[in-house]
Amino acid sequence: MQAQLIALDWGTTSLRAYKLAAGGQVLEQRSLSSGIMQLPCVPRMIAGRMCADGFELAFEEACGDWLDAQPELAVIACGMVGSAQGWREAAYCDTPANVANLGTSLNRVRSLRGVDVHIVPGVIQRSRLPNVMRGEETQVLGVLQSLPASAGDNLLIGLPGSHSKWVEVADGCIIHFDTFMTGELFAVLSEHSILGRTQERGAAFDSDAFDRGVQVALSTDGDIGPLSTVFSARSLGLTGELSPTEQTDYLSGLLIGHELVALAGVQRLRRNSASLPSIILIGNSQLCARYRRALDACGFARVSLAEQATERGLWHLAEAAGLLG
Amino acid sequence: MQAQLIALDWGTTSLRAYKLAAGGQVLEQRSLSSGIMQLPCVPRMIAGRMCADGFELAFEEACGDWLDAQPELAVIACGMVGSAQGWREAAYCDTPANVANLGTSLNRVRSLRGVDVHIVPGVIQRSRLPNVMRGEETQVLGVLQSLPASAGDNLLIGLPGSHSKWVEVADGCIIHFDTFMTGELFAVLSEHSILGRTQERGAAFDSDAFDRGVQVALSTDGDIGPLSTVFSARSLGLTGELSPTEQTDYLSGLLIGHELVALAGVQRLRRNSASLPSIILIGNSQLCARYRRALDACGFARVSLAEQATERGLWHLAEAAGLLG
Repeated sequence: MQAQLIALDWGTTSLRAYKLAAGGQVLEQRSLSSGIMQLPCVPRMIAGRMCADGFELAFEEACGDWLDAQPELAVIACGMVGSAQGWREAAYCDTPANVANLGTSLNRVRSLRGVDVHIVPGVIQRSRLPNVMRGEETQVLGVLQSLPASAGDNLLIGLPGSHSKWVEVADGCIIHFDTFMTGELFAVLSEHSILGRTQERGAAFDSDAFDRGVQVALSTDGDIGPLSTVFSARSLGLTGELSPTEQTDYLSGLLIGHELVALAGVQRLRRNSASLPSIILIGNSQLCARYRRALDACGFARVSLAEQATERGLWHLAEAAGLLG
Repeated sequence: MQAQLIALDWGTTSLRAYKLAAGGQVLEQRSLSSGIMQLPCVPRMIAGRMCADGFELAFEEACGDWLDAQPELAVIACGMVGSAQGWREAAYCDTPANVANLGTSLNRVRSLRGVDVHIVPGVIQRSRLPNVMRGEETQVLGVLQSLPASAGDNLLIGLPGSHSKWVEVADGCIIHFDTFMTGELFAVLSEHSILGRTQERGAAFDSDAFDRGVQVALSTDGDIGPLSTVFSARSLGLTGELSPTEQTDYLSGLLIGHELVALAGVQRLRRNSASLPSIILIGNSQLCARYRRALDACGFARVSLAEQATERGLWHLAEAAGLLG
């Protein structure tokens, strides 16, 4: 089957490359660790010239041989590659954002080998506390393509990660989203705060400890908020009620629980309804499994997982941009 | 005037020594950086023997000359020196805790020079999410000694710090307290998260940026909680609405604001009253000034600062323990 598009999901710490055929079918895919914060640095010959540029080197690694074989293939990329620290900054598009207006706002960088890389802009929501995403917009649009247009009314798309995003959609558009720094907060607390000193990490997932953390966030004890309850990961250790191996997943459940309690609160308020929306999760399967447990405990009754969101989103954006011959 | 007591406030990163006369009057005081996590390590002669023990060395530095001059002086110490990582662990006393029951629960370590050091235990509250303090109990008891016994009914004592404590008192007793990890969270977010990358630190206190952060926590935008609002320290930077020099104090105000909004909520609930208690703050004057601004914004109308809380508390505990000749 003939390839029609090279699609790159180029984030901070990883670079995924997809060779796609008609309809977005995946012919081949690769995972590299060449995110924009850890680009390769060993110079090599590219198009007859010695090159030391990290973006060029990563691009060659990811798909140089595909382009050697089919030099006319279009290339599209999303993620932090379009940030101020990326290969070429692609200015944010405002909400509401859909495939049509993002697809016609791609930025372009000409690579050394003469191929244009089309970069998807991120999305900005200019609320009083602004919100931005870069990469997640492509995943959300990928999921929306496979849903009926009416699906958005009672739907929330969740993208767990260092900075989790919760995206409201309508008529194929991203209309509103919230960010929670839960993942990064968990990491810095575990690695750099006093809570990490008594944690024993590396064990298998302790679902009981995780669920216990979620329940604390949901309980009246949790009403005092995460700035206070996080101390219980230490104090329950001091009283012997939480072992060192349990502390990590307890803290994880506690923070994710607080995120979801807050999310449920704002969703009920915005929708002026006691019932909560359906959820579609996109992301790392282990992290999505944690969120799924916690969502269930927090009363989100309908939760499903999306597959291949990024490559589908990139395919549809390339189509909207007229890149597919 | 004759000294009657040596009082040590011995924490994680500092050691303060006081020589006290009748009534707790301070004759002399010293500040050393020999907290229990940064003890001296150069061996020296103590009582005719070469010694490399960090606690002994710090103790000699702090008050060896005072004891040479008056070998019979009693010595009392509070703070992390009584923790599991300290010189001698002094088991926590349960709430309710007052001068009498803490004063009769001192632990004792015999120093190399033959002088006993009496260590004040910390306090534990065995609630569902337990709380512990070590050092703060002495400060709170020091403040209570100068107040009428009835003062506790509508009073909350605040001890801002890495882990701030908010202490409810009655009849001279510590009866309940909450911990917030606000200070440590601010530090790890500024030093180790993405928020720190765009902060420009070291400038003078920016009260406007701080107040703006407090107001966000107080606003309906703040209802989504700190796990989400902290991202605004970055996103307001991306949109040019918050300069790099403003981001640090904005984040400080935002976190302290969330702490105080949560505190006000639980206080109103526990007291079953819309009115908020009077506040006495104990601690570092710059940090107390930040909390005072934020308390005012959050509707705490009566706020005052305590002086000499630690040395007064140590004096009264020594008295209750019968250490004062």
